[in-house]
Amino acid sequence: MSDTGEDIRPRTKLDEATADIYAENGSIRGDFLAAVGAAIADADTSFLRKHVARLHESELGDLLESIPPEQRLALVRLLGDDFDLTALTEVDEAIRMEIVDQMPNAQIAAAIGDLDSDDAVYILEDLDQEDREEILAQLPFTERVRLRRALDYPEQSAGRRMQTEFVAVPPFWTVGQTIDYMREEADLPESFTQIFVVDPTFKLLGVVYLDKILRTKRGVKIEAIMRETNYPVPADMDQEEAAQLFEQYDLLSAAVIDNNGRLVGVLTIDDVVDVIQEEAEEDIMRLSGVGDEELSDSVKQTSRSRIPWLLVNLFTAFISASVISLFEATIEEVVALAILMPIVAGMGGNAGSQTMTVTVRALATRNLDIHNAWRVARREAGVGLINGVVIGVLVGTVAGLWFQDPHIGGLIATAMLINMFAAAMAGIMIPLLLDRAGADPAVSSAVFVTAITDTTGFFAFLGLATIWLLP
Amino acid sequence: MSDTGEDIRPRTKLDEATADIYAENGSIRGDFLAAVGAAIADADTSFLRKHVARLHESELGDLLESIPPEQRLALVRLLGDDFDLTALTEVDEAIRMEIVDQMPNAQIAAAIGDLDSDDAVYILEDLDQEDREEILAQLPFTERVRLRRALDYPEQSAGRRMQTEFVAVPPFWTVGQTIDYMREEADLPESFTQIFVVDPTFKLLGVVYLDKILRTKRGVKIEAIMRETNYPVPADMDQEEAAQLFEQYDLLSAAVIDNNGRLVGVLTIDDVVDVIQEEAEEDIMRLSGVGDEELSDSVKQTSRSRIPWLLVNLFTAFISASVISLFEATIEEVVALAILMPIVAGMGGNAGSQTMTVTVRALATRNLDIHNAWRVARREAGVGLINGVVIGVLVGTVAGLWFQDPHIGGLIATAMLINMFAAAMAGIMIPLLLDRAGADPAVSSAVFVTAITDTTGFFAFLGLATIWLLP
Repeated sequence: MSDTGEDIRPRTKLDEATADIYAENGSIRGDFLAAVGAAIADADTSFLRKHVARLHESELGDLLESIPPEQRLALVRLLGDDFDLTALTEVDEAIRMEIVDQMPNAQIAAAIGDLDSDDAVYILEDLDQEDREEILAQLPFTERVRLRRALDYPEQSAGRRMQTEFVAVPPFWTVGQTIDYMREEADLPESFTQIFVVDPTFKLLGVVYLDKILRTKRGVKIEAIMRETNYPVPADMDQEEAAQLFEQYDLLSAAVIDNNGRLVGVLTIDDVVDVIQEEAEEDIMRLSGVGDEELSDSVKQTSRSRIPWLLVNLFTAFISASVISLFEATIEEVVALAILMPIVAGMGGNAGSQTMTVTVRALATRNLDIHNAWRVARREAGVGLINGVVIGVLVGTVAGLWFQDPHIGGLIATAMLINMFAAAMAGIMIPLLLDRAGADPAVSSAVFVTAITDTTGFFAFLGLATIWLLP
Repeated sequence: MSDTGEDIRPRTKLDEATADIYAENGSIRGDFLAAVGAAIADADTSFLRKHVARLHESELGDLLESIPPEQRLALVRLLGDDFDLTALTEVDEAIRMEIVDQMPNAQIAAAIGDLDSDDAVYILEDLDQEDREEILAQLPFTERVRLRRALDYPEQSAGRRMQTEFVAVPPFWTVGQTIDYMREEADLPESFTQIFVVDPTFKLLGVVYLDKILRTKRGVKIEAIMRETNYPVPADMDQEEAAQLFEQYDLLSAAVIDNNGRLVGVLTIDDVVDVIQEEAEEDIMRLSGVGDEELSDSVKQTSRSRIPWLLVNLFTAFISASVISLFEATIEEVVALAILMPIVAGMGGNAGSQTMTVTVRALATRNLDIHNAWRVARREAGVGLINGVVIGVLVGTVAGLWFQDPHIGGLIATAMLINMFAAAMAGIMIPLLLDRAGADPAVSSAVFVTAITDTTGFFAFLGLATIWLLP
C-alpha cells in the first residue's frame, strides 16, 4: 500500500468517520450492523449521527434493508432531521411505505423540500391522496406547484421521473453573461451538465453543453453555439420508451417538454438506468410468472401474487392430462409408455423455452422486427429439426436398450423429433403473435408454449404408439 | 402542429435530408429500406451519402442489421470513407465480424483513428492477432500506445471499456487559467463533463465538475474547488462490478486508475448502461439455458450452443423416468396415475421456477445476502405451504370428480402439497448454495430445481399411491 494511495481506495467514502460498510461479498459488514443495532438499542444518537447520517443515500438504503424491521423506524426517529429522505428512493416499496406511513407528515414535509424534485415525486406518488395533500400544503408555493405538475403526469411517464430544476437562458445572452449569471445566482440545481436555451414563453430553442461554454470566448452569443435538442422527451412519454431513446442515442440527459413544446424539466440518465434495470427485471420475472413482487413482501402478498400463474398452468396441465387419458388403453397395454412420456414432453418444454426466451428478449430490445422475423423463424425451424434429430437418436437408443425393444426406441425418437420441431415453432410464433396482438409477450408466452409442447409431446408419443405397437 | 414545433419532434434528426427512419413499432421503415436497397443495387453513392452517411451511428447499426446480408458489404464499400465505423459497435458480433473481415485493414486503420478510444478497442478486440497488429502498425504513435494499453487489460474489464481521452490539469492552476486553456487547446475530447486534477506523475488528486468551474470566480485555485474522487475504478476491475458502482452511487463517469493510482482513462455511464443491459440479458438467457447466442448466429452455431443444456436436461429426465419405473406395477394396476402424474411434477416445476427466479435475481442485484436469507427462506416455505394447500385442494377436487374416486383426489392433493413445498425449498436453497460455492446461480439452478421437483413429484405421487391404493 502506498502512503498516498489511501484517498483513492474504491468504495471508501470521503469522511474518515465512515469506513467502508460493505464486506467482500457486497453485503453490509456484520460488525457494522451489530454496532448500529447496539446504538439503536441504546438510543446513542451521537454514534448514529457520526456513522449513519453521513452514509451515501444508497448505503443508507442498503442499511435500512439489512436491519431487522423493528429497528428501522427507531433508526429514522433517532436520526430525526439528519435522516436523508432520499434513502427511501433506494429501498423496496414495502419498506418505504412502512417508514413513510409512520413518519409524521410534518417531518416528511420538512425533509422533502431538500430533495431533488424527481426524488420527492418518487416518495410522494406512493402516498395516499390525503397524506400527499397534507404534505404538499406545507411546502412553499413554487415547490408545491412544481411537484403537483409532475404528479399530474401519468404514472411511469417521463414527467414523473424528470427533475424540474434546470438552468435556462435566452438565446441573445453572451457566453460571458451566462458565466457571470451562474457565478452570481445562488438558486442553481445541485449539479448539471447542460444549459437550455428558451424563448420568453419558455419554448425550448436549444441546448448548450457546459464543455462548449468553457471552450468558447466570452463575447460569443449563446444562439451561435447552441445545438438543436434532437431528442426532447414529451412529458407524457412512457419511461420505458424514454429509456430506449437514451440507450439508442447515448444521451446523458434530455429536455422534457409539454404539449406546447415548453421546457418543463430534464430527465437524467441516472433515473433512466434504474428504468432499464427495472424493465429487464420485469421481463425475467414475467417469463417465470412472478409479478411485481419484492423481497420484503409478506407471505400472504407473495402467495397471492404467484397463485394466478399457477392456476393458469394448472388449467393447461389438465388439458395435457386429458390428452393422455385418450390413450388409457394403450398405456394399460404397454406401461413403458407411462415411464417415457414425461421425457418427450419435458424435453420439448426445454427446447421451446430456449427459443421463446430468445424471441421475447429480441422483441423487448427491438432486435426482432418484421424485416428479420422470417429469417429468424427459418433459423429456429432448422435448429428445431437438427436438435430434434440429435436428441431423438440419443433418446431412442437409450430407451430401446433400456426396454430391450427397438420399436420403443424408434417410437420415442420420432415423437421427440416432432415435438422439438413443434417447440421451436411455438417458441418463435407465440411471442411474435402476442406482440402483434398488442400483448406483452413476456407475460403469457410461457403458458402457451408449455401447453403446446406438452400436448404435442403426449399426443405424438402415445398416438404413434397406438398405431405402431398395438395390433 | 404548431409551426415552430417542427424542430422539436422526438426521434427526428437535425438535418432535413434524413427524416425519421423508424416506423411506429420501432423497426426501420419499409420504404426507407427499399430505397436503400435500390440505391445499393444502382451503386447510387450520392443517395447513400445524402441519406445513409448522415445517420446516427445507432441508426446506421440498425440499418445494417435490417438489410439482407448480401447488401451489407456493398453498402460499406459504396460509402467508403463516409462509412462511420462506430456503427459497428452497435451491431451483433456476427455482423461486425462479417464486415470487418472483408474490409481492407488499411481502410479500418484510416477510420479507427477518428473513433473514441473505447469504440476503437471494442472493434479491435474482436479481430485476430495478425489483423489487429497490422492495423495498429498503421496508426500514429500516441494513438497506438493508448489502444495497446487498453487492449492489455483483461477482457470485460473497466480498462477495455474506458475512454483514454480526458482533460487533466495541475491543482495550482486557477479557474481562469483552466478556462483559458480549454478555449485555446484544440486537442480536447469531443465532449466531457469533468476535469481531473493530477500531480506531475499523473497520480489522481481529485475531480472538478464543469458546473463547479462555471460557478466559481476566475481567481480561485482548482485545488480549492476540486473534490476527492470517491469512486475511482481500478483498470482491471470487472466491468460488471464497475457497473454496480455506477448504479449504486449514481455516477455519470468515473476515473480509471492503474495499480499505482495513476489516471489512465475515464469510464462513462453510456458504456456502463450497455453493461447493465448485457448482464441482465445474460441472466435471462442463462436461466433458460441459452448461451451468448445472437440473433444473427447461423443454424449450426445456434444448435451447437443449445444442445449442451438439452443434454443435461435429458439426463435428469431419465432419472425421473427411472423413478417412475420403480412403480411400474402400481401404474399397471391404476392407469389414472399415469394420466395425473405429469400434473404433480409440472406444477412443482412452475412453483420452483417462480421461487428460483426471484432468488437468482435477488442475488444478482445483491438484494439477497446472509442478513435476510433466513427471513426470505422462511417466507418461501410459507408461500410453498399455502400455495401447496390451495393448489392441492383444487387439484384433488377436480381429479376426485374426474375419476369418481376420493382416494385419487386425496392422493394427488397430498402429493401436490409435498411437491410444492419441496419446490419452494429447492427454489431458494439451490441458488443460494451455488452462489456460496462460487458458481453462477443463473447457469445451473434450473436443472437442479427441475430434477428435484420432477423426482419428488413422481416419487411422492406414485409412492403414496402404492401404499394407499394397492392392497
